[in-house]
Amino acid sequence: MIYFDNAATSPIDPEVVIEMTKVMKENFGNPSSIHSFGREARVIIEDARSKISSFLNVSPSEIFFTSGGTEAINLIIRACIIDLKIENVITSNLEHHAVFKTLDYLKTKEKFNIQYVNYDKSGRIDIYDLKNKLKENPKSLVVLMHANNEIGNLLPIKKVGEFCKEFDSLFFSDTVQTMGKFENNFKKLNLDFAACSAHKLHGPKGIGFVYINGEIKINPIIFGGGQERNMRSGTENIYGITGMAKAFEIAYREMKKTQDYLNNLKLYMISELKKNISSIKFNGECETVGLPNIISASFPENEKAEMLLMNLDISGVAVSGGSACTSGTSKASHVLNAIDPNNNDPTIRFSFSKFNTKDEIDKCVSVMVKVLQK
Amino acid sequence: MIYFDNAATSPIDPEVVIEMTKVMKENFGNPSSIHSFGREARVIIEDARSKISSFLNVSPSEIFFTSGGTEAINLIIRACIIDLKIENVITSNLEHHAVFKTLDYLKTKEKFNIQYVNYDKSGRIDIYDLKNKLKENPKSLVVLMHANNEIGNLLPIKKVGEFCKEFDSLFFSDTVQTMGKFENNFKKLNLDFAACSAHKLHGPKGIGFVYINGEIKINPIIFGGGQERNMRSGTENIYGITGMAKAFEIAYREMKKTQDYLNNLKLYMISELKKNISSIKFNGECETVGLPNIISASFPENEKAEMLLMNLDISGVAVSGGSACTSGTSKASHVLNAIDPNNNDPTIRFSFSKFNTKDEIDKCVSVMVKVLQK
Repeated sequence: MIYFDNAATSPIDPEVVIEMTKVMKENFGNPSSIHSFGREARVIIEDARSKISSFLNVSPSEIFFTSGGTEAINLIIRACIIDLKIENVITSNLEHHAVFKTLDYLKTKEKFNIQYVNYDKSGRIDIYDLKNKLKENPKSLVVLMHANNEIGNLLPIKKVGEFCKEFDSLFFSDTVQTMGKFENNFKKLNLDFAACSAHKLHGPKGIGFVYINGEIKINPIIFGGGQERNMRSGTENIYGITGMAKAFEIAYREMKKTQDYLNNLKLYMISELKKNISSIKFNGECETVGLPNIISASFPENEKAEMLLMNLDISGVAVSGGSACTSGTSKASHVLNAIDPNNNDPTIRFSFSKFNTKDEIDKCVSVMVKVLQK
Repeated sequence: MIYFDNAATSPIDPEVVIEMTKVMKENFGNPSSIHSFGREARVIIEDARSKISSFLNVSPSEIFFTSGGTEAINLIIRACIIDLKIENVITSNLEHHAVFKTLDYLKTKEKFNIQYVNYDKSGRIDIYDLKNKLKENPKSLVVLMHANNEIGNLLPIKKVGEFCKEFDSLFFSDTVQTMGKFENNFKKLNLDFAACSAHKLHGPKGIGFVYINGEIKINPIIFGGGQERNMRSGTENIYGITGMAKAFEIAYREMKKTQDYLNNLKLYMISELKKNISSIKFNGECETVGLPNIISASFPENEKAEMLLMNLDISGVAVSGGSACTSGTSKASHVLNAIDPNNNDPTIRFSFSKFNTKDEIDKCVSVMVKVLQK
């Protein structure tokens, strides 16, 4: 079995499983309890928070644990509109469902304006269009993802941060796909909000966090016992939190090595695909820059290409047609449609992790060649 | 070390740890992915949903996984006020923070009325007062917890359900403390909403669910990829879900035995406490009925009694001063204050699980006797 769908979710690192199992067996206290069981649990959680925040160069008090990236994104956008009374949101048509579905819902309840920045046929955000929009609408909220989950394009995040600062605007970058993949020094990036989902970096599902610049005060969306310094009530998922911290530790320990390894895998696969499938086209910027682990490739519309995804699955190769984040899921991808509405070509996303090998790429390409030649 | 704080959180059952570890190692797919890894994950989640729903005698389509009880409670109350436009909420002053903090917040945003039912000095809800309030305000939302987390009182839930039906009102019972402890046949109880937190029944933290009567249509509070049939977006916490289903399986398998065992422990401790500490008073109905695993006891206000909690902790016995669900936590309990505002007596909650023994009770009582006699 070959798993090339790591942008959808990634296998838990065995070191993370060991750490989580240890805590599951030994530390079950409620971190809000004042007795020794509770204090031990509290220490584990605060150690995890401190570890993660030091990697990102932020204060531990700026990290709030959530059930994942989607909750984090909902919290940020809702708070900006409802609590901070943002009147203008600048975003793009290439964002994750959690962004645009939350905005869609809020549109039915609150008064605010949404502007969409331009991008080119490679999905590159036009940052000068963004700058113009910011000039006309200072005090906006900018919502642009750090790396696109379907095509792997990277935002010039530092530049966008500078523009946001210049025009007194808040900057939320959905960093779900880049956490643990790049250094992400948030303080240098002038970010106000960011989101993390542990399962994208070999951590467990059901846990993530939101980064909120310490100068910003917002309301929670989940109320109760006042956990997470009143920002997110509910007994803390101590096993998930400890697993996420371990995943960060591993990712930062191996970062340079993994970046090089993944980039090599990506370039190798692109070259093998080009060599063997002449009609292939690559979406976004994956051939040159972009995330080191995502390739989005399209094939001329024909019966064989349409069967590619299914045939890869039958042959034991797991890839994705677009992103996995649309439940149901053989729907056309909104990102690819946005880049080129006339493109109906069957598209496959290959996304790698450190657990993949060149040998797996060879096997995958050979299956593809067979299917397309049948 | 003795752990008598199971109402705050309970140790994970070793069988649950084994099940979760297996899934962590073998099944990491994203349930929204259509390839084999995704399908396997989907099967695990739907099997868990089907198992849990059959125990509760509801349809699998009425169970939506959440990050825990607090999220479930927020979702229900918010939806009733915002989507279902409930104009009158009937609740009590004895509910969990997740209930009254959510209502407090919504009060600042929406127009609705809150009525509080009467109760007696034992914390017994006056269901005839409830009936009168319902008669005057049909089409209300009734929010009354099944078992109180501090004093263990049980609501006559069947009767309340009948009244709600009679007066065309919605009924939400916070069942967090009774899940896995009683049969909870939801269809027989005429419940519209209920909440579960797996870590209260020897499952993992960070996972729970909301039960929503299939005839009721509401909006989610977390938007995104449309998981949980559009009711709760975010990649599913497959490890947590599988652990929760296992915890349910164990709880239902051992229910009668555990009920008897806990009830015996409770009655034994009450009798030992009475025998050894003449000044003790019991809160709520724990001496006669109530949850089989909770005792709330008060001691005459004096220096020794005030040091009881700390001295028990030093001696390796973990108990709670009120509930653990108020972060920070040596605050006076809102429940005990509500029952008797003049009572400032130091209070301790002992809450047991199947892992506790009579021997532990003997040790605990002997520590208490020593501290109070010093």
